[in-house]
Amino acid sequence: MITWLNHVAIAVPDLDAAATKYRSLGAEVSDPQELPEHGVIVVFVKLPNTKIELLHPLGEASPISGFLERNPGGGVHHLCFEVTEISEMAGKLSEIGARVLGDGSAKIGAHGKPVLFAHPKDFHGVLVEFEQT
Amino acid sequence: MITWLNHVAIAVPDLDAAATKYRSLGAEVSDPQELPEHGVIVVFVKLPNTKIELLHPLGEASPISGFLERNPGGGVHHLCFEVTEISEMAGKLSEIGARVLGDGSAKIGAHGKPVLFAHPKDFHGVLVEFEQT
Repeated sequence: MITWLNHVAIAVPDLDAAATKYRSLGAEVSDPQELPEHGVIVVFVKLPNTKIELLHPLGEASPISGFLERNPGGGVHHLCFEVTEISEMAGKLSEIGARVLGDGSAKIGAHGKPVLFAHPKDFHGVLVEFEQT
Repeated sequence: MITWLNHVAIAVPDLDAAATKYRSLGAEVSDPQELPEHGVIVVFVKLPNTKIELLHPLGEASPISGFLERNPGGGVHHLCFEVTEISEMAGKLSEIGARVLGDGSAKIGAHGKPVLFAHPKDFHGVLVEFEQT
């Protein structure tokens, strides 16, 4: 079951500018972290209850590049919900007819935990990540 | 300053279907609430750390109708951050060159508290609401 909103991921065309903006509004903002195996460079806006992940493409085959081509100004890329058991969630998604991206099985995500992504067309236009915690 | 992510608002073409989906994944989901003065009908997905607001148009002049025309399958409509002082935030936004929607002053929002909306073009493609708590 869904237990927590882990993060909101926002793809941004200019990571420094976006980080500076949130910092200037009083939020705690991390230094950029490169995640080459996921094709992104990330900055975390750390709020007491959740975090905003500002994403920018890293490398040639970044999963964020296509999104920024379609949305050059940026936009919300995905929401990530924590779940108790990823295989239980995979079963639930299948039960309600929501497609899982890729081969349907959980992968190790950007935070080193098992994740699944559900198809935006099956989640009212929102790419939804489920992460086992 | 920004202190908390109050909610993520998602505009959905079918409120019952979206509510049923989140309920089936184990989340606590409220009954629908009509907010005629804001032109929306809302369902809250209540997580321990924040909430997801599922929005659907209510009435002729709903602010959500245009969004759903552009995004018929739905999508993230806005993020709402809590702030300590709305007038201080208005000053900050002006200082960093982020436009405030409307006449630039705070209004009473859907939860009875003073709010401002910053222009998505000045927030990397995301409509951002600031709510004084």
